This record gives sequence, C-alpha cells and structure tokens, in this order.
Amino acid sequence: MIAQNHIEALEQIVGKENIFCDKAHTIAYSYDATRTRYEPDAVIFPRHEEDISRILTYCNEHRIIITPRGAGSGFTGGALPASGGIILALEKHMSQILEIDMENMVAVVQPGVINMDLQRAVEAVGLFYPPDPASEQYSTIGGNVSENAGGMRAAKYGITKDYVMALRAVLPSGEIIRAGKRTIKDVAGYNIAGILIASEGTLAVISEITLKLISKPKMKKTAMGIFPSVNQAMEAVYKTMAGGVTPVAMEFLDKLSIQAVESKFNKGLPKEAGAILVTDVDGNSLDELDIQLDIIQTKFNENGCSEFKIAQDEQEGAALWFARRNVSPSLVVYGNKKLNEDITVPRSKLPELLEAIDGVARKYDLVIPCFGHTGDGNVHTNVMVKDGNDPKQLEIGHKAIEEIFQITVDMGGTLSGEHGIGLAKAPFMSMAFTPSELELFKVIKKAFDPNNILNPNKMGL
Amino acid sequence: MIAQNHIEALEQIVGKENIFCDKAHTIAYSYDATRTRYEPDAVIFPRHEEDISRILTYCNEHRIIITPRGAGSGFTGGALPASGGIILALEKHMSQILEIDMENMVAVVQPGVINMDLQRAVEAVGLFYPPDPASEQYSTIGGNVSENAGGMRAAKYGITKDYVMALRAVLPSGEIIRAGKRTIKDVAGYNIAGILIASEGTLAVISEITLKLISKPKMKKTAMGIFPSVNQAMEAVYKTMAGGVTPVAMEFLDKLSIQAVESKFNKGLPKEAGAILVTDVDGNSLDELDIQLDIIQTKFNENGCSEFKIAQDEQEGAALWFARRNVSPSLVVYGNKKLNEDITVPRSKLPELLEAIDGVARKYDLVIPCFGHTGDGNVHTNVMVKDGNDPKQLEIGHKAIEEIFQITVDMGGTLSGEHGIGLAKAPFMSMAFTPSELELFKVIKKAFDPNNILNPNKMGL
Repeated sequence: MIAQNHIEALEQIVGKENIFCDKAHTIAYSYDATRTRYEPDAVIFPRHEEDISRILTYCNEHRIIITPRGAGSGFTGGALPASGGIILALEKHMSQILEIDMENMVAVVQPGVINMDLQRAVEAVGLFYPPDPASEQYSTIGGNVSENAGGMRAAKYGITKDYVMALRAVLPSGEIIRAGKRTIKDVAGYNIAGILIASEGTLAVISEITLKLISKPKMKKTAMGIFPSVNQAMEAVYKTMAGGVTPVAMEFLDKLSIQAVESKFNKGLPKEAGAILVTDVDGNSLDELDIQLDIIQTKFNENGCSEFKIAQDEQEGAALWFARRNVSPSLVVYGNKKLNEDITVPRSKLPELLEAIDGVARKYDLVIPCFGHTGDGNVHTNVMVKDGNDPKQLEIGHKAIEEIFQITVDMGGTLSGEHGIGLAKAPFMSMAFTPSELELFKVIKKAFDPNNILNPNKMGL
Repeated sequence: MIAQNHIEALEQIVGKENIFCDKAHTIAYSYDATRTRYEPDAVIFPRHEEDISRILTYCNEHRIIITPRGAGSGFTGGALPASGGIILALEKHMSQILEIDMENMVAVVQPGVINMDLQRAVEAVGLFYPPDPASEQYSTIGGNVSENAGGMRAAKYGITKDYVMALRAVLPSGEIIRAGKRTIKDVAGYNIAGILIASEGTLAVISEITLKLISKPKMKKTAMGIFPSVNQAMEAVYKTMAGGVTPVAMEFLDKLSIQAVESKFNKGLPKEAGAILVTDVDGNSLDELDIQLDIIQTKFNENGCSEFKIAQDEQEGAALWFARRNVSPSLVVYGNKKLNEDITVPRSKLPELLEAIDGVARKYDLVIPCFGHTGDGNVHTNVMVKDGNDPKQLEIGHKAIEEIFQITVDMGGTLSGEHGIGLAKAPFMSMAFTPSELELFKVIKKAFDPNNILNPNKMGL
C-alpha cells in the first residue's frame, strides 16, 4: 500500500479532487478487456502535462509505480497496475481535441481523446483519420499510440504509427520532451516518436499527439465473395492484394464464424461456404472504384469464388458487412470463454496458417473459429473453451494457443498484429525474440526508466 | 593510428583482400558530399553479416572506432570517420537484392544496394518503391535508411521510414538482431526498426532491409504553373495540398532559380516570373488523373497562377521538369560555394518562410535561391558565396544559415528534412532541442553503444 504522506504530497499537485484511494475508484480502475484484475493503491487524474510532470518527478524520487491508462480497453493488460502503485488516468481531464489544422492537414489531440470522436471531428471538415481499431467507439488515441493500434482499414491506409507526426511526452524523470514535427519530413535527432509508439506506456507518458490527416475519399463501394473453401479464399486474398489493387479492407470469416453469426441472427448467410471475404474500395470517382472492383472480381473468380456481390448502395453495403461486424459476439455459441489472439503472418502464408490452425483444432478437439483482417495478414484466432470455469479445458485451450503462436512465428509472423504484449503475451516473448533482442528491450527500458517506476514488468521486461 | 596487431586480427576475419591501410584506399574513403575530409586508418569490406558481427565484436573489445559507409553521398558527414578508426564499407560485397517477394509485395536487400537499382528491379515486375532521393542514382538503401532519405515523391508517398518493414542489424557488441516483420502490422516488442531509421549509423550497423513495395500506378501526368510572386506560389502549394488532392510531387523554383537555369540553358523560361510550380499526379485511370489536375488548376488559378500547362505526353512532361531537374548545378552562376540546407516547415508556413529568407538575403547582401519539395514543406535553401575561398564571405554565409535555422525552428520546422545532422548541422542541435531532449539522445546512444565505438561524435552526441 502507498503511504498516506505520498497521497498528501500528490494531493498538493493535483488537488484532493483528483486523487482517490477509495474502493469505488480502485475497483473501477482495476481491469481492462482481458478481464484480469489488479487493484491499484490510488487513481490520479492529471489536469495537464505539467501535472503529469510533477507526478512523475515525485513518484520517480520516491520509487512509486505509475501505470498510465486511457480507456482501459486493451486486450493484453497494458493498462493494468500489475505491480501495484498508482493509475494515471488520462481520460478525464486530458481528452480535448486541441486543434484541427486544415492548412497542414494535421490534428493535435490530448491522449484521452476517443478515436471515434477524432474521426467524426475531422470528417466534418472533409478530412480523414484512417486508423479504426474495433475499439474505436471507446479506445483513446493515447492508448492507440501506446499499442500502435490497427484496424480494418490498415490494408490500404496503414496503422496508427503511420499517422503520428509528433508527440509530447513526459519521461519517468518528469522531464517533458517533444519528438517529431508538424512536417512529413524530419530527420533531426533520433526518432523518439518511433520508439514511443507501441511502447505500451513503459517508456514515457504521452501527453500530446500530432496526427497526420488525409483528404476524405469521396466515395466507397463494398463487395463480398463467397468461397467453397477457406484455402481458396486465402489464396484469393494475397493474389488480389498483389494484383494491382489496394482495397481499403479485405476481411474474412471462416465457416465456423459464418455459422455462428447465422445461428444467432438468421440472415440467410451461406452456411455451407468455406469462407466469405468482404472488401471495401474507395476513391474520388466511380471509374476509380470500378477499376478496383474489376480486378478484385477477376482475382476472386480465378481462385474459386462461387458468388460475387457488389453492394449498390450504402444499405446493401451494410448488409454485406453485417456478418463480419457481428461475428465476435456470436462466437459464444461455441463456449463461454474465448481465447482471442491477433496473430499476423505475411499474406502469402495465410492458406498455410489456416490449415495449421485447423490441425491444432483437430489435435485438441477444439473449435477455433477464425476471422479478421486478412488484407494485412492479421487473423483473429479464437480458441473457444466450452466451460471457461473448468481449469482443465482452459489449460487445453492455452496449450493450443501456444502451438498456434509457434506456428505463426515459424512462418515469419508476429505474436501480435494489434493488441500488444502487455501481460497476456509476455510468456511468449522468448518464442519470438532471441536473448540478444530481449536484452536490447531491457537496455532501452532502463535508459528511459532507470528506476523502473513506469508500468514495470510488462512486455516480458 | 591503428596498431598493426589489430589489422592482423581483422585480416583473420575478412581476409587480407578485404582490409586496406594504403593511401589509395584511405583517401578514397575520406570524403562525402560535404567535401570535408577525414582520413580513416583503414578501410574494411565485410563480405556478409557474420563478418560485420565479428568485426564489431573485435572493435568493441579493443575500443576501435568504426564508421559504417554506403556510397558516401551524404550531405552532412554521417559517413565521415571524423574521429579516426576504420571505415566499414558496405557497398562492395553487400549490395545484393536478395529477394523480390511479389506475393507479399516486399523486397529484401543488403545495405549496399543502390536505390535506383532497386527501383528498376521492382518496376520490371510491376511494383513500385517510391522513395527517390536526388541521389537515387548512386546512394545506397542502407544509407537511405540510416538518414531516412526523402525525395520528390514524399508529398504523396512518404519517405524511407514509411517503407521499412523489417531490419537485421549488428549491435556494437557484435550481437545480431532482427527488428520488424514482413507484415503490415507487428506490435510485439519495442519498435527497434523505428529508432534505427535515421540514426545515422550511430546505434547499429544495418545488415539487411525488408522494404514494403506498392503496385506501380499505371499512368502519370505532369503540369506546371507560373506565378507572379513566390508568395502566391507558396499559398497555392498548401491550399492545393489541403484541397482534396495529393499530387505525387509539388516542386518549386523561385525567381533566382529560374534565372540561373535560364542563363545556363536558354530554354525560354519565364525569367520575370516570381516562381514556378511543377507537379506530377498519378493513378490507374485518366479520369483519376484529370480529377486531380482539375483541382490543382483551380487552386493555382485562385492563387494568381498566370499560366497553367499540362504536358500532353512524356516528352512534354520532361520539358516541364527540365528547369527543376537542372537547377542545382545551375546555381554556380551566383558563386563558387553553395551552402545548401534542407530546412522543412509545416506547409502553411511556406509563404512566411520564403519572405523571411528574403529578409536574411537583404540583410547580409547575399543571393539565396530557393527551390525544392514544397509539397511536403521542404525547401532547399542555397546561400551562395561568391568566393568560397574568402573566409570572410564564408563566415557571412554561415551567419545567414544560422539565422535561417532559427527562423525555421521558430516556425515549428526542422533543421533537416532529408540530409540528417551528421557533423554539418551538429552545432545547431541545441537550437532545435532542449537539454532534456539532447540528454535523452545521449542516453539512447549509450544504451546501444556503451563504449562509443560506432560513428561517435555525430549528431551533436
């Protein structure tokens, strides 16, 4: 427990009304989307960057552990106070869009701004912020940067790191630093913004973010292809992406995912299909869209597509997206516990990956529905545990996950395309990285945070 | 001087035929594009990554300074052995394109591959590697990554860092590490590739580079606008870029640049014009190109463009590009010494920047022609010194540069958009960064290179 004199000192910084040790607060800030719980000793709400600086200075001096937190919607425990100490909650007072600079197509935001709020604000003035994690309705930009969040539009538009132009951040010492500029090109000094992105709140507390915006494409079309087998669909994915077209999204559902949605919603989905691919293309003219759809249809047909539909309007487009958007909650039909991983492989390895996952499912007699962002090789792999309260079933599920991780790494893939490492994937770091690489991570952590006060013991560090 | 026993030990690693201490070698490897000279004690040519590892292990143990070098075409001295020691020359044995993976749209190259060789190889199979530094004919990909090279196409396609998916590198300790994956998404572990890009060979020796490729756009058109004043042209630039179009390139020449080219080549350029903008658009249909050109023409006209030409074929396009492509060597008409800086500001600050540079020119009675990549705010600012052998004239030139740097930084710009810091801009680092930021750079350098053997004393470190 944190000593009362420390609480009093921190009250001097933020005011009594911005630090809490009561159960209502410590319990509310004890969880994230992993559903694991770690109760902090206190929750503090900085009002501005200067507060963060003073809090960190104090905590660094007194070796008090601090865990920064946005919306707490992470899937790997990045924002959990696993080693105790204080939660630095940024969503309350630091959630302003500070500027939308239309002349330079840049937005400046505080870390607590919700992704969708930013998307809406910039689209209202004809601009576009592409990164769209599935959590976009509630996750914060600070969290998105800390985890380097992806989303469906990554196939064409890339991920969060591709939009971060500059950051302000507070080092564990309390020092405030700036990294990057409001310019496309900036090569002065080390790329500090580059290393802070995806560092999961372990190196510094990000206090302000400058994001690149682009012009909003004028139009969009949706298409869907039905495939007899998942293997043919996966072949179609990488051959389409290499075929001279870059769709905004290229998402897939396997047979188990299709059947789960259909059993829940009865939408007349093709229950016997091996896979469905749903894709969006965008651009500034119908011509531009049609050229892309032509290539997609050709590549789909060459790879066994049995039915290809192009939505004629937004409503039809939404109907084609229905299955994909509702797959995640539908999977409860297979079990009450879902072990959801976001493995990613080079696209050409998708057929082999899906086949190998099927092998793991057979070996352990498990149901493992897969869906996700195949346009960038990112497959959401859901090992379903019928009864999550049965430790034996859970153990088998985790064994299957471990095997899937090994298969992924062996194919040149990554443990995590979107969710980060946090606590949940920390045990697998030695599978993906050599001792020298892990040692380098530790050396970098120590360079930024010599007293190990900032979100310690995450990412296998 | 390096002791003979060290040379013998290194001969054991690479063979006598790959290490040289003779003048022919040490002089040949003593310069870069800054024309400053520092003679190394020896030049070593590693045959592969394992050689690099063994060389660094030895040099680290014996505290021998190593400077990695690609083509030596840098503008800021990054590859100069300013503190003596050994040049690690990567262009001889490590210049293979190892793989062009068409399925995943990725190229894997050794650091010594020349940028244009890679561009040609991938274009031959319908793919596209956009980063096109002016040095593309001779600079290496390893150098491009180390300096985070830009180019004309950055306005639409970004810079080198936007294409680096993964790296292999050798740490000063000799340890070999991998960073990143052949996937768009990868958020496992710290973004080591991110910090190695633009680190100017001070943190590790990059031994292999995996680059993202894109589909080659099917067609391109060139247009040119003539403006009465540079101010109007600069307004046109940022208003066009914010106007719903992203041209591939948006380049400018000011009046002094136009006049220099005209006096050298007599091409009938508009000598009384205040500025010329040259722009390329690309896409996969004529429709897509025309939509972009319409917006550009409208925005140009709204900002005082007196003449707008669209090239009707490739030959006409080349003619429109002639002035821009030949401006740099034409500037000799103004003096025999050119102090060429690559400052970059947010685009909307371009009018103010050009006005301020004009003020500096008047104050010091200097000729300062400007041209460059206005599409991304990057202005090549050329302080012309009539007689570069006159120390007094040179001193005035450097004073002007210093003032221009201060103006740039005050506008939220950067000391360097493309060329890096190296030795040439090191004295100005404290203008651009706070003591805390500079200290963080030093801490990072020390974390990677505790014995300070790798390209020391660069970047103001």
